[in-house]
Formats: sequence, structure tokens, C-alpha cells
Amino acid sequence: MRSGRAAGTHTGTSDPCWLGPATTAFLRGRQVSLLAEGPIADTLRLELATAVGPAGAVGGDPSCEPALVLARHDLLAGAVGVTGPLRRAADAAAGLGEEGFALVGDGSTAAVVATGERGLLHGYFHLLRSAATAGSHEVLPTLETVQEPALPVRMINQWDNTSAGDHLGSVERGYAGDSIFFSDGRIVQDRRRISDYARLLASVGINAVSINNVNVHPAAVRLLTDGLPDVADVARIFRGYGIATYLSVSFASPIVLGDLPTADPGDESVVAWWAGVAEGLYREIPDFGGFVVKADSEGRPGPFDYGRDHVDGANLIAGALRPFGGRVFWRCFVYDHRQDWRDRSTDRARAAYDHFAALDGRFADNVVLQVKCGPMDFQVREPVSPLALAMAETNTVVEFQITQEYTGQQIDLCCLLPQWHEILTFDVSGEQLPGDTLASALARRGRVTASSGVCAVSNVGDDANWTGHKLAQANLYGFGRVAWDPALSAREVLGEWTALTFPDATDLHETLIELQMGSWGTYEMYTAPLGVGWMVTPHTHYGPAVDGYEYSKWGTYHFADRDGLGVDRTVATGTGFAGQYPKAWAERYEHVETCPDELLLFFHHVPYSHLLHSGTTVIQHIYDTHVEGARRVVEMRDLWRSLEGRLDEASWTNVMERLERQVNSAREWRDQVTTYFFRKSGVPDRNGRVVH
Amino acid sequence: MRSGRAAGTHTGTSDPCWLGPATTAFLRGRQVSLLAEGPIADTLRLELATAVGPAGAVGGDPSCEPALVLARHDLLAGAVGVTGPLRRAADAAAGLGEEGFALVGDGSTAAVVATGERGLLHGYFHLLRSAATAGSHEVLPTLETVQEPALPVRMINQWDNTSAGDHLGSVERGYAGDSIFFSDGRIVQDRRRISDYARLLASVGINAVSINNVNVHPAAVRLLTDGLPDVADVARIFRGYGIATYLSVSFASPIVLGDLPTADPGDESVVAWWAGVAEGLYREIPDFGGFVVKADSEGRPGPFDYGRDHVDGANLIAGALRPFGGRVFWRCFVYDHRQDWRDRSTDRARAAYDHFAALDGRFADNVVLQVKCGPMDFQVREPVSPLALAMAETNTVVEFQITQEYTGQQIDLCCLLPQWHEILTFDVSGEQLPGDTLASALARRGRVTASSGVCAVSNVGDDANWTGHKLAQANLYGFGRVAWDPALSAREVLGEWTALTFPDATDLHETLIELQMGSWGTYEMYTAPLGVGWMVTPHTHYGPAVDGYEYSKWGTYHFADRDGLGVDRTVATGTGFAGQYPKAWAERYEHVETCPDELLLFFHHVPYSHLLHSGTTVIQHIYDTHVEGARRVVEMRDLWRSLEGRLDEASWTNVMERLERQVNSAREWRDQVTTYFFRKSGVPDRNGRVVH
Repeated sequence: MRSGRAAGTHTGTSDPCWLGPATTAFLRGRQVSLLAEGPIADTLRLELATAVGPAGAVGGDPSCEPALVLARHDLLAGAVGVTGPLRRAADAAAGLGEEGFALVGDGSTAAVVATGERGLLHGYFHLLRSAATAGSHEVLPTLETVQEPALPVRMINQWDNTSAGDHLGSVERGYAGDSIFFSDGRIVQDRRRISDYARLLASVGINAVSINNVNVHPAAVRLLTDGLPDVADVARIFRGYGIATYLSVSFASPIVLGDLPTADPGDESVVAWWAGVAEGLYREIPDFGGFVVKADSEGRPGPFDYGRDHVDGANLIAGALRPFGGRVFWRCFVYDHRQDWRDRSTDRARAAYDHFAALDGRFADNVVLQVKCGPMDFQVREPVSPLALAMAETNTVVEFQITQEYTGQQIDLCCLLPQWHEILTFDVSGEQLPGDTLASALARRGRVTASSGVCAVSNVGDDANWTGHKLAQANLYGFGRVAWDPALSAREVLGEWTALTFPDATDLHETLIELQMGSWGTYEMYTAPLGVGWMVTPHTHYGPAVDGYEYSKWGTYHFADRDGLGVDRTVATGTGFAGQYPKAWAERYEHVETCPDELLLFFHHVPYSHLLHSGTTVIQHIYDTHVEGARRVVEMRDLWRSLEGRLDEASWTNVMERLERQVNSAREWRDQVTTYFFRKSGVPDRNGRVVH
Repeated sequence: MRSGRAAGTHTGTSDPCWLGPATTAFLRGRQVSLLAEGPIADTLRLELATAVGPAGAVGGDPSCEPALVLARHDLLAGAVGVTGPLRRAADAAAGLGEEGFALVGDGSTAAVVATGERGLLHGYFHLLRSAATAGSHEVLPTLETVQEPALPVRMINQWDNTSAGDHLGSVERGYAGDSIFFSDGRIVQDRRRISDYARLLASVGINAVSINNVNVHPAAVRLLTDGLPDVADVARIFRGYGIATYLSVSFASPIVLGDLPTADPGDESVVAWWAGVAEGLYREIPDFGGFVVKADSEGRPGPFDYGRDHVDGANLIAGALRPFGGRVFWRCFVYDHRQDWRDRSTDRARAAYDHFAALDGRFADNVVLQVKCGPMDFQVREPVSPLALAMAETNTVVEFQITQEYTGQQIDLCCLLPQWHEILTFDVSGEQLPGDTLASALARRGRVTASSGVCAVSNVGDDANWTGHKLAQANLYGFGRVAWDPALSAREVLGEWTALTFPDATDLHETLIELQMGSWGTYEMYTAPLGVGWMVTPHTHYGPAVDGYEYSKWGTYHFADRDGLGVDRTVATGTGFAGQYPKAWAERYEHVETCPDELLLFFHHVPYSHLLHSGTTVIQHIYDTHVEGARRVVEMRDLWRSLEGRLDEASWTNVMERLERQVNSAREWRDQVTTYFFRKSGVPDRNGRVVH
């Protein structure tokens, strides 16, 4: 049974997040006009009908003085009597790309004009955002803006498993309940949450989603076979929101699904098999996005199994997708996950660059390399991945992690927008040349084939509030927004989110923004110090275990002894990782004198007595930041307690409960880390605090 | 459907362990006579029929000059013409208890006489053992022995879960496959493995078994309701081998099963509920053993929930069982499992004694306290539990762990018989008084109600060889044997097991015995040093993690810092645990000068430079023993490799594969422990070996 439900409505049974009824209050009872056709226009029509309510009307004729007009540029061309905001928007929209829009409002009427349906959808949601941030709950905002997305690819990866029996439950590294996509080995029959999710993603400009875990478990292969009609229906839902649907597939699919004896890219039957699969897929889903592949990574099969390289592997699958306009996202998270901790010459941080940088220019033009934002794995602090800075001739998406695997698991508040902003605005050359941010470098690559950008692992599950922690919704919201416009500051994005999410608590907006703004820094303070990372409980990755990954196979070490700690990744005496960066950065990271404090232990092994640029020693820094971090969490908790009754009950209670747990967690981090280093260094806290 | 299979046969589909066909070869084709009736006699009759084979005969008349007579003493009383071994055995058997036997053989005939059926069964298996150790594969042995068990209770605890979905799979801390008792939430339909197991246990004198996990998961409660007919059938199987069947039950059963609002021992309805349950049970199983209860332990419900003490709790359930002759085994594994690692005043080692010692004399006479052999939890080295030495007025069983949770998980070879021998022969007063071993103290307590003794957690699962590691069968065998006769040395027991298990490899027996004899000491060398314990991977408990339990809630710390390590449990400056021992031991443990080296870090926090009685420093001891322990494992592996072709293929291959893994594990232990302490202490290895 397919869901007969139209894509354009939402249920109200789950938290509407930043799209609650108040966000469209200024349209209630109004006349609006929509000039466009197609599945996205259908969605928009339902959106508008819901917004205007029974007292309003949605029509096609812009001449009857509607409060709002959304119009495709080509349909307006012959219209006469186009004046005011609509005229200005139409003029501004000329020549925009398919996702761009012009939005003009004079306070009494507003107009969105775009060359494509998706532009209209983006423009509509931008109008809601603008109204909320202007505080215009009841009146149309005054504004004039022309926007295009800075990055062509803005993708969400679900790490959802098809059945609950799979590895780590139904969402790998999910902290907000089970999958909204799957149950009992197949796509859920009730697809209202999927539709609601598509709406949320579309509202912040996401244009691609992969719906199943990159670790493709055996049960998930049936998505390509008898599960395909269900996938097609999900793709239909996302299509209505301008979002392309992707699947994660195993490189070994020809063996697992096709009964072939090999998955060798050099084998004709393998090439033919992938071509057949693509043909079958595109017959059902003509606008299917393509595949995400995790190959030769953490035990997954890949081209290395056949003595081939990643170019062979990625181009194999790209070749099958090319006739249909599909793309393959090829993950670069390739490293030796059976490392020997005794071996200090192997450095996991080097791995992605070592594997891929030399292949630049050899990938097919519908291959997109997916590069994690840091060289390790989504720690609270890492340098920017040097591979993300290289490969000018290859489509690249930089991967972020919205789900808070290493950053508090949606128990601890940790707004990641400041981190993402730092990464996206990273100065690629290190020489402060104009327009040389990571985002602009990606955009430049993207201009070749419109296939570069960003992607991120989702943080949603079937919890009523989607993200477990109410305030973690801001990370999902914010990812879409910075993907659209990397120049947006974290504070601007939080301003939008807060205004949209808590429209009735305008007096608290500044407080809520401040709370989120400081949370990443606070989390960094009470966890692993100075960029060294990995002091987490093995497997779960929540809570402290200073030596938890120290003697492991994962390549994740801090090398603390009684004299000092940190990883020597210099060219001169260490693993040479620092040399993978553009020259200015390589030199800066190479020397303790120029290496930023916050990354000191990522690049250097130093004595506890080493003096930081901040003027304090490493050991005292550890004591001070951990005490201060835990103190700030208590302060956040107390602040939140004082807000009781001033926010909706569900949100307040949810966050209160999480903050209480965060207080305990931060205390545990503080005490374990300080005790560990006191026992090892023997250096007393200069401030005389108790260390256990 | 109940199994229609008689209890007395075995299938041959699984490893016969120490009861292979060669062990009865000396009876093949013989005439034997059995004078006894009842379920155990039925079992014996089938045993004998199998042994003598088609060319022999099993009769009832001892006058036709059979090679072997097994006779109940009372049935012989009026018989005339009783001469030779039968006469001598009959005379010796007079006045024995129900489990004792007299066994006399003159090389051509043999006789077993006992006052009860169980004595005959024990005598029969003793004959097989005697034949094997005498090398008499073909002829009846010459011997004359009268035996009674030293300890009345010799029990096995299964930690089997009723369904695979339960915590940690179907056998908690099981390392030999899934449960042989349960699948899919109920008792298995094919009960051949259960019958085979009953035979193995009976052959070493076990007389009680509890069949389900002491952590009673929700699905297991149905054993008391609709699962009861199946339990009755299992009890029938064990009955044929002289073994009483027990169930583990939850203290909260009146709530879970009985829909009562409380499980309070002071509540009349609760008392009545337990009485009703007992009545129902004994209606189905008139000789049901009783219950095992883990209460107020690691989160399990118990009398503390109602402000009652353990006397109230245990006596409640004992009262229900008393009319039927049943017993309750009440576990003393009660401690704070939510301890704060910062709190050095709480000491888990103290907990059992602190909770129970003062209650001595107040328990009903069908309550048996079940006390773990050490104060912590089955570490490779602990002192003997002071609670096991106290409570002279209370039935007590000392609990051992055959399953190798902390001792190598049946991957590493670790024959625990030397450990158990040390514990059972522990000098209770510490003053070397005659007959003052722990075993004799238990036997003395046992004389009051015949309810003291030993119990142990089983190491079997549905692996073909029962125990995962072929040589781990010796631990199961040996537990039964030392429970019967604690004076037996580990070497004697291993001699029996080896002769029975590898009858065709007599030239290797000494080698195999030596291999096992040294294995516990070797395991101790390469794991946690000097009695400190707990340096294992959290949760799984396999492999090293020096700090794995250091900052945990479990009360399991080593307190290593840059200057030294160990737990101060002295009365003078520590937790006072040492004071729980009888005076001589208390004084010996209190002082570093008199504390045995192997327990030094259990009782004292000392500097790395502390000089052991062995003449080396603590830090050098750590380096030396870890290097030596790992070296010995390599030596064991190489020795085993040289045995290829000289043992049966299945056994050789199994052990070879495990020893290869043990080599890796021991190397990992060696390197992590030595590196950890080098990094912390900064003291180089005197022998100049590489520390990472």
C-alpha cells in the first residue's frame, strides 16, 4: 500500500520545529497568487492554502491585487499591468539559476519571482524567515532580496538502518529515537513523518538526501529490488519539495544482489550489472539522485579488494549513472582501522589525503568526493581537512556531522554553527587572499559541473521533537542555512531559528541565542583539551575515558606520559601531516610558536609546562578550562531553570532534563580529565582546587 | 511435546568429554550385576548396558560371578555366598551416608556397595576414573576405597537466559555458544544435550543445578507458570543422575507474576503468594531443589526496597519452601554498584561482610548463603572472602566461577584448579591449626543441616566441545572433583581428567598436565599485577584496559599515579577491609612487611620503587612478569604446535586456534600494561627492553 497522502501537507502530530503556525500568521485570511506548475508548485499551493486558511484564497491571477504573488519568471513575461513589488521582483529575477529567487515586499504586498519552481519554494520559505526575524507576525515584511545558493550541492545523509536488528539500532549514531524512514526491514507505511521532514529540509534549502546508512547492512540491499516501489514513493515525496533522493549502496552489490562472483571494476559483467541496476532505478524514478558509497573504509568492500584504485571504483558506478544524469558520492573516509598503537609512524590524520590527493583530475565528472571536514572524525576541534583544500579538479562535498556523535549526543547542548562557520570560512591559502574561503573554493569547483558543496549526517529520529534535544533543532536548521549562504554568521542563523521557533518569547531571544552561541566553546572546554580529541568512552562515544582509545586499533592517540602529551604531526620530527597543507598553513602548524593554541596537541607533543600563547601552561590550561567548562554548564542549567513558565512546557522540560544530565556529564569530564593529568603529571593546580 | 528420550543414554553427537567410549572398554563383553531400584538405578542400568555392549549382560543376580556388582547395601543384607570384593565392599559400606560408596576391585572382579542409589552412581563413575588413571583400558582395576563427599552441597549455576534477545545473548558471561537449556524463550524441545550434561555433572559428583540466570530477565518468569511442565521434565532428567533442579527467581516475583502491589516480606499476601508458588512447584516436582535469589544486587529488587533486611528476605522464601524440603540459595553479592570513584572511603571489598556478617544465626535452616570466593568478583587473584570465613552459624556455599569471565574467556588457557585448591585449603584461622581449612569449616557448618558446600557458574554452551576451549573441560571436571574431595591436588585432578579425556595419548599426559598446571600462573603474570585486579576492557572483560574501570561506578580501582599504585585497605590508614579477617590474617595483611607479594596491591598503595619479598621492585616486577607471561604463552603455543598429529584432530585444532589468539592477547596485555606504567612512572626497564 502506498501512502495516498499529498506531499504538501503536514500532520501536526510531531513538533513543527521552526515552521509552526505562527510563522505564516501574516498570510492568514489573505489573497495569494501562484503562477507555476509542477510537483513543487503543487506543494506550494497546499502550503499557501494552509497558510491563508478558510478566510483567504489561493488563485492564479495576479491582477486581483493579492497580498502575495509567487510567479515563475517565464509565465509573467507576457503579463500586463505588472507593477510594484512584483515588477521589481520580476526584473531582479531575470537570469537567475533554477534555485535562485527575487523577493520584494513593501509591507502590504510581496512577490517572489524565480526562473524555476525550486526558486519559488526557497523564496517562500525565505519570506517566512524574514517575517519572523522582522517580528512581523501579522503584517507582511518590507524587504528586497535576490538570492542564489552559494553551493550547488546541499545534501543530508541519513544513517538509518532498515531494521532494528541492525548494528547499533535503527539509526547509527542516532540520538533521537528510531528511524523515521524504516521499520522491520522496509520503508515505513505511514509516511507523514517523511513528508514533514522533507518540508523542514526544503525550508532551509536542502536539495538532496540519501535515505539509508552508508554502512549498508545486508537487509538494506532490498531497497534496490523489491523495496524499489517504496523508494520511488519516498522520492515522490521529496520531489515535491525540490529534493533529490539518493541511496547508499555497497560496492559489493554485484555479488550480494547480482550473484556475480566478483565486484571488480575491471570485469565486464560488473559494469553491465551496474548499468542494469541504474536502468531499473531510473525507470521507476526518472530524477533519482544517485548513490552514496563508503568503500574500502572500516571493513567495507571496495576497489582495493581487486587491486584497483578509487578512480576505478568511483568511475565504474558513475558510468552506470551518467546516461540518466545521476551522481555517485564517493566517501574519502579511508584509513587503516586496524592500526597498531605501538606504531607511531602511521597517522590516521594523513590517510584521506594520502589516498586521494594524487587522484585529482581522474574522476568522472559525475563523481563527487565526499570529504569529512576534519582529518579525523568529527571531533569537537580538529584542523580543517587538508584534502578538502586540495583537489581543485574534482567535484567535492565537505561532510559535516549534525548528529552529535562526539559532541554530546543531543544530551549536552552543543550548537555547532560556530564550528561550521569557522570551517566554511577557512582561509584556504592561509595568506588572506580575497575570496579564498573554503566555501568559495568549493563554489568554484562547483561551477564546472554544479556538483560540489556540502553534506551532513542528520540528527533526526522519531522522537516527538525530531532531534532529542529541542535546541539541537538549530543545528539541523543551521546546516541548511550555512549551506545556502556560508557567509551567514552563527549569530544571524541562530537569530532566525530562535525567532521562528519561539515566536511568542521575543523577550528571551537574546538569551536563547547567547546560550547556543557559547555552547560549543563550553563543550570544548570540559572535554579533550587543545585539539587532541578522542578521550571518549569507546563504542558509545559519550562521556570521558581519557585512555579509552589510547591503546586501540583506531589510530586515535594522545600519547600522554608523566612529562607531556600530544601528537607530533610535524614534518621535522613527526608524522609529516602538517606538510599536507598549503604552504602558509603548513608552516604555521609546523612550529609550536605559530600553531594556534586550540590545535597545539593535534600537531605537537609538548611538556605539561609548555607555555601557551594564552600565557598559561598546558597543565594549568587543562585544569582551568575543565573547571570553567563544568561551571558554565551549571550556569546554563541555572539560567534555564529560571526560564520556567516563560517558554512552552514541552520545550522547557525537555531542555531542563538534558541540562541536568549535562551538568553530571561535565562534572564527570572535569574530574576524570583533571585527575588523570594530575596523577600523571604530579603538577598541582595553581588555584588549589581539589583534584582527586 | 516432551522428550521421550530416557535419561540414561547419550547421543554421541557432542563431545563426550571425559566419558568417551574408551573409559568403559574394560567392561565390554562382561557380565555385570545391579541390585538397586529407582530412577538412578534405571540410569545405571542403561550406562552398564551401553558399557558391556551386545556381547555382555546386565543382570540382577550377583551369584553368577559377574565381573562387576553394584549393590545397594540393604538389598545385599540377606544374600548368601557373598565373598571377595563384594563382601569387602559390603562390610566397608555399612553406615555410609546416602552419597557414599565402597569400591573394591581385585583385578578380575569389582564391587560397588552403597546405602543409596546416588552412592552407586558415584561409585560407578569412580570405577571408570580409577581404571583410566591406572591405565586399565582393558582390565578391571585393583583398588579398595571408601568415599563420602566432603561437602554436602556441590552445585552448578547456569547463567542461561531464556531467550536470545536477553542481555548479552543467551548465556550471560558464556563463552561456548548459546544455552543448551533454552531457545526462543522456553526450554529446548530436543533435550539430548541436557541429558548428556546431567551425565557429565553426575560423573564428577555434582548434586544440584540451577538452570537459569541469576539475573532473572522478564521472559524467564514464565518458567514458574506455563513453562513449569518443561521444567518438570528437565528435573526428571537430572533426577536420573541424582541431581536436584533449582530455579533462579526474582525477589519481585509477587509483583511481576502475582499482580501484587508489593513484594514486601512483611506483607501477608506476599507470604501467601510464595507459599502458593511453592505448592504448585512441588506438586509437579516433588523433589524440586528450591530457588537461587540475587536480591539487592546490581540493580535487582530485594528486601531493601521495603526497608527489610536480608534475613527477612531470605526467610520469607525459605518459609514457603520448608514444608516441601526445599532450600533457598541467597547470594551475598551485595554492594554499591553506583559508587563514586572520587570517594575513597567506600570499599566494595568490604560490602558482603558488612552486609551479612552481623546476621549470623538469624537465617532459617533452609537458607543457604552463597558467598563469592573472593571479596570482589572472580579476579585472577584475590584474597579469600572474609565472609566465607565468618558466619559459623549459617549454611554457606562458597561460589566459584568456572566460566572464565575475567580469566581468559576460554580463549586463553587458564586452568583454575590451583586457584580453587588454594581457596578451599585456605587456613581459616591463619594459625595453622589442624583441620582448619575453609573446606573443613564449610563441612562443619554443613553437618548441622547438610546444606553447606560449594557452587560454581558453569562454563558450558552449545559448542560441540561444550566449553569452547577443549582444555577448559578440565575446569568443569575439576570443580566437581574438588567439591567432592577438596584435599585432591590440582595435579591429581588433572591427572584423572587427562587420562579420561585423552586415553590414546598416554605419552603426552605429563605434557598436558604441565601445560594446564602452569596456565593460571601465566595468566596472572601477563594481566593485572600483584592482586590489584580489574584492568580489563569494560563490559566484555576480555583484554587489557588499565584504566578501563578506574573512573567507573563499580568500585574497582587501582589508584595508579606517577608515584605508585594499589588500594590501601589497611585498618590503620585505609578502608579497614583487612580488619574483617581472623586476627592472624588481619595482622598479616595489614602490614606491607608481612602481606604476601601476590596480594600486595590489593591491600596497600605503594611506590613503584617498593621492594617485594621476591627482591625486585614493584615496577620491575610489572615489567618482568608481563614479558615473562607473554613469553610463556608463546612457548605454550609452540609446544602445542609440536603436538600436531599426536592428538585427535578436533582437539588439536581447537586448542591451536585458541593459543594463537592467546599469544596476541598476552602480547597486548604485556605491551599495554608495561607502556601504561612506564609512561606513568618514568622508570625504565632494568633489562632494557622496549617499552612503547
